[in-house]
Amino acid sequence: MSDQNMKTKSVNEKVISPAVIKRLPRYYRYLGDLLKNDVVRISSKELSQKMNVTASQIRQDLNNFGGFGQQGYGYNVEYLYSEMGKILGLDRDNNIIIIGAGNLGQALANNQDFDSNGFKIIGIFDVNPKLIGMTVKGVEVYDIDMLKDFIAHHDVRIAALTLPKSKAPVIARELCDLGIRAFWNFAPVDLSLSEDVIVENVHLSESIMTLSYRIHSKNQ
Amino acid sequence: MSDQNMKTKSVNEKVISPAVIKRLPRYYRYLGDLLKNDVVRISSKELSQKMNVTASQIRQDLNNFGGFGQQGYGYNVEYLYSEMGKILGLDRDNNIIIIGAGNLGQALANNQDFDSNGFKIIGIFDVNPKLIGMTVKGVEVYDIDMLKDFIAHHDVRIAALTLPKSKAPVIARELCDLGIRAFWNFAPVDLSLSEDVIVENVHLSESIMTLSYRIHSKNQ
Repeated sequence: MSDQNMKTKSVNEKVISPAVIKRLPRYYRYLGDLLKNDVVRISSKELSQKMNVTASQIRQDLNNFGGFGQQGYGYNVEYLYSEMGKILGLDRDNNIIIIGAGNLGQALANNQDFDSNGFKIIGIFDVNPKLIGMTVKGVEVYDIDMLKDFIAHHDVRIAALTLPKSKAPVIARELCDLGIRAFWNFAPVDLSLSEDVIVENVHLSESIMTLSYRIHSKNQ
Repeated sequence: MSDQNMKTKSVNEKVISPAVIKRLPRYYRYLGDLLKNDVVRISSKELSQKMNVTASQIRQDLNNFGGFGQQGYGYNVEYLYSEMGKILGLDRDNNIIIIGAGNLGQALANNQDFDSNGFKIIGIFDVNPKLIGMTVKGVEVYDIDMLKDFIAHHDVRIAALTLPKSKAPVIARELCDLGIRAFWNFAPVDLSLSEDVIVENVHLSESIMTLSYRIHSKNQ
């Protein structure tokens, strides 16, 4: 099957279940690794062995998007990788600002995976005079008072909140008022924002508690 | 109902569904906040309004453990908090070592929530001579060569991996050989370890991609 034919099969407009969505970034990661290793095509069986899921699961998941493979050929790695990237919205600029220039904020700014996936950290903000003016991987740390002006002059798509629980809700509401509609929230607090705002939480305390539960229940 | 009576109702030995488990840390967090604000008891309705879930969901979830409330009284906050802590395995020492003393490792070591929930960072390990010997919140950064000796002399329950993707699988296998059976993995790679090893992944790249997907699909 030519790439041309495969393209006609992709159906990006379909609504996809959250469980499938959750697996997409992992497919994308594995396909990226295959690409780096110059793998041109792969069968669902081979991919399933690598990813430790069933081949049938992979076929079902990808069929949600119209299917990208062909019986006997398998998947064209480069094409599938590129189509997945489009589905995940990685084919456009995803500019991020980070609120909080502490260790976690700096860790995000230093993360090399973000760059290669089209996420670009364009500014870091803090209240701490010791941090303001420094650069992390070429990105400047600005005074939080500059936020309004910065957002007015840049296309900011996502705000990552790496600041204390006590401050996150207030800043989030301010950012909302300034037009930010997507938050990557690392503060251990639930943000109550308007319905049209997207919040993706990374609650580290909850993650470590889940791990603790699993250890505890295994040992019983 | 007295605390004495409520205690007889707790059933910790029951197997609980993963979906419920995932919600437990959030209940625990909210109950902790209530305790700090000196709230003695709360109805499922009040709790549900705070947590933005249904009261029926809360009652169902807690009934998995035998139920901790009483019609007309609601929940005793301190008791429920304490029982949840036991279920989550927070009533024992959970000693953690961190492998990788970069920004992310330091961010974990600095996280104040861990302390208050019984998680104790007891050592950080790195290969970088510039980092070895420094302390983060009183915890020393050791040479990675000290790992075997350290584990032999300390009760290490969890290893947090905050190191590059290329190094994580090898170190994880070494730690397994040294007896570590629980990993909190921040490296963007799936660890293939033996069946009895528990791995809790925090894949930041996948989290930001999920956020990107949600933005992208909302805008379509």
